[in-house]
Amino acid sequence: MSHPVSPLAPPRQPDLPPVPGVRLATAQAGIRYRDRTDVLFVLLDPGTRAAGVFTRSKCPSAAVDWCREALGAGEAEARALVVNSGNANAFTGLRGREAVRLTAGIAGQAAACAPGQVFIASTGVIGEPLDATKFEGVLADCAGRADPGAAGWAQAARAIMTTDTFPKLATRRVRLGDAEVTLNGIAKGAGMIAPDMATMLSFVFTDAALPAPLLQALLARGAQTSFNCVTVDGDTSTSDTLMLFATGRAGNAAIASLDDPRLAAFAAALDDLLVELAQLVARDGEGARKLVTVAVTGASDDRAAHRIAMSIANSPLVKTAVAGEDANWGRVVMAVGKAGEPADRDRLAIWFGDVRVAAEGARDPAYDEAAASAVMREPEITIRVDLGLGGGAARVWTCDLTKAYVEINGDYRS
Amino acid sequence: MSHPVSPLAPPRQPDLPPVPGVRLATAQAGIRYRDRTDVLFVLLDPGTRAAGVFTRSKCPSAAVDWCREALGAGEAEARALVVNSGNANAFTGLRGREAVRLTAGIAGQAAACAPGQVFIASTGVIGEPLDATKFEGVLADCAGRADPGAAGWAQAARAIMTTDTFPKLATRRVRLGDAEVTLNGIAKGAGMIAPDMATMLSFVFTDAALPAPLLQALLARGAQTSFNCVTVDGDTSTSDTLMLFATGRAGNAAIASLDDPRLAAFAAALDDLLVELAQLVARDGEGARKLVTVAVTGASDDRAAHRIAMSIANSPLVKTAVAGEDANWGRVVMAVGKAGEPADRDRLAIWFGDVRVAAEGARDPAYDEAAASAVMREPEITIRVDLGLGGGAARVWTCDLTKAYVEINGDYRS
Repeated sequence: MSHPVSPLAPPRQPDLPPVPGVRLATAQAGIRYRDRTDVLFVLLDPGTRAAGVFTRSKCPSAAVDWCREALGAGEAEARALVVNSGNANAFTGLRGREAVRLTAGIAGQAAACAPGQVFIASTGVIGEPLDATKFEGVLADCAGRADPGAAGWAQAARAIMTTDTFPKLATRRVRLGDAEVTLNGIAKGAGMIAPDMATMLSFVFTDAALPAPLLQALLARGAQTSFNCVTVDGDTSTSDTLMLFATGRAGNAAIASLDDPRLAAFAAALDDLLVELAQLVARDGEGARKLVTVAVTGASDDRAAHRIAMSIANSPLVKTAVAGEDANWGRVVMAVGKAGEPADRDRLAIWFGDVRVAAEGARDPAYDEAAASAVMREPEITIRVDLGLGGGAARVWTCDLTKAYVEINGDYRS
Repeated sequence: MSHPVSPLAPPRQPDLPPVPGVRLATAQAGIRYRDRTDVLFVLLDPGTRAAGVFTRSKCPSAAVDWCREALGAGEAEARALVVNSGNANAFTGLRGREAVRLTAGIAGQAAACAPGQVFIASTGVIGEPLDATKFEGVLADCAGRADPGAAGWAQAARAIMTTDTFPKLATRRVRLGDAEVTLNGIAKGAGMIAPDMATMLSFVFTDAALPAPLLQALLARGAQTSFNCVTVDGDTSTSDTLMLFATGRAGNAAIASLDDPRLAAFAAALDDLLVELAQLVARDGEGARKLVTVAVTGASDDRAAHRIAMSIANSPLVKTAVAGEDANWGRVVMAVGKAGEPADRDRLAIWFGDVRVAAEGARDPAYDEAAASAVMREPEITIRVDLGLGGGAARVWTCDLTKAYVEINGDYRS
């Protein structure tokens, strides 16, 4: 189960400050792993509002169903978050739904709130029944120990890891109207990471005071250019959950509209933080040794650009070429061609890093194999494609496909 | 470049009889490989009709463009076929189009026909200019040596291989009205094999006398349930070409309509031969050690069933689980969920071989891990999914994703 830390991990983890209104604790509930934490319990002050973006899978986990329903209540308070690793509680039928209800009941008692104010996320193996009685005592103990201390954030990010090789954290400090607010985020995910959704699990906490519909709009928009632009293997999880909790403790003056100019800096900081977290997920792609940015310009529109970028980022042949440090731009042409979006072979231009390898439907006359190969040896590579058709643009992140990916996923369960 | 023969290869190659009206020869043109044949030249008797199904890539190869145009002429005669391996002549711009014209000219002279009666297919590296002058002399020599002999078919299948580890041949003998006709087919392809197209290269030859529109209708229909149901890596080639040539030498009485009952046996034999060739492609998937049949039933319609089957067959997580002999049906649930087609988690049932592992949205109560694991150790595995929604069904073939796939594709060019 234990794999070496990704060579693409940041050299050091950021220190996250406390977020007023948020207290955290982690514990070993023995869900699946031994000798490591596998539960995160977050206590949220009264008045906390929540927003969420979830997997579009037709087979969502029981926890995703629960969160969707709890959020459906709109301005309902969010008072607690329980996250466990090791078991996704997905495709577990009636027992899965009962496990979620039991978890919410135990967490509600520990947090002194209603079960409907508890949010739940689970990650790990699909199809195994989750024994929620293991949370009994554990969550009450967590509630007693929970504190806003900075050390808690690193521990929180670690407790939700599965095949991740490093914890993923990011923070921003930004002005919101008349107050300074903090945004802290954590994420997990290394495989089963794919387009058109939030990634497996990511949670963002802020002390900003903002109504739930605004939080939801900001989060949905932010997910589009961050988590929805990351792919490791094109496989969409049953459990993908991205949530934003706002405690309101910063006490900023009320903001009611998405168009309020006082919101701009906060929205930009949120977007930026989500991109940082999403990139961390790509950096920890299972078996990854290269971080690949795919930038598409000149497409007929942004949607077409995104689909072409994802076709490149999900192509096993492109990803194995990157793993082999091979400037194989023919495979990029193939991936553009199969995307099904408007493309004119004879207008296509392709760059690896700053080296233009192809232009006007053929190899660039000035193409320098040595220069392109030098780009491929870097740990971070940008593949740029210009379609020459219109103004559509997109940028997505992925990693290479290595033998280690096959190894990790050939024996994950056993 | 040389990889061990796939363990899924048939124990022996079939012997193909001559097809009246078809003569073959192979040669070493030195396109890219050393010490092996890399050109197939097929001479077709006057009166031969042709049909073709080609890649849906938006960046097709110059040869695909050429064949589409030549077929566009409808009842035009097909008199020769040139296939080279080692260079796909794709994304080669103006030079690529000139190379195709030059090839057709050289082949036309050798076969004593018009260049527009020559069909061309190229497979290999994308983006490298193809030096068609290498065909000069070679094709004229081939024309002198070409014969209908049975040995020629095995050599033909070998000359068009790239990363293939074994030649792919199939044959059928069937009644067509008042005559017995032969159907011979060859195929190549091991990577860049994906849904919604013909596979890389496959050619079928018959002595049946049938008009071109009928041949086209039969071929297009046959491709749907054969090559369009095979995926190795979800990557669609720029060069996919499936062609059917009918010399008419069997002299059967004229058949003008697709509904003519005399056509039924021929159509069934063609479909069957196409399925055999398509399965051979999956058996030679790059790095493959397992042949996987994915059968989906109970979907809302056939199209939905096909998309769900392809989502399972293309999932890197399902394919690595198969490589690891892990009965990880949770990943099958994931792949059903991400397909975007109607699915009801609580009606889903899943089998590995004859072992039902999941039913009604949860693990089968009678699930036997040992029995499922025994299925996974077999070289040929069927994954069956019933959606419980309607009458839609589909069946597709794929292979496992192994470290060898990464190895093969990490150093294909270098």
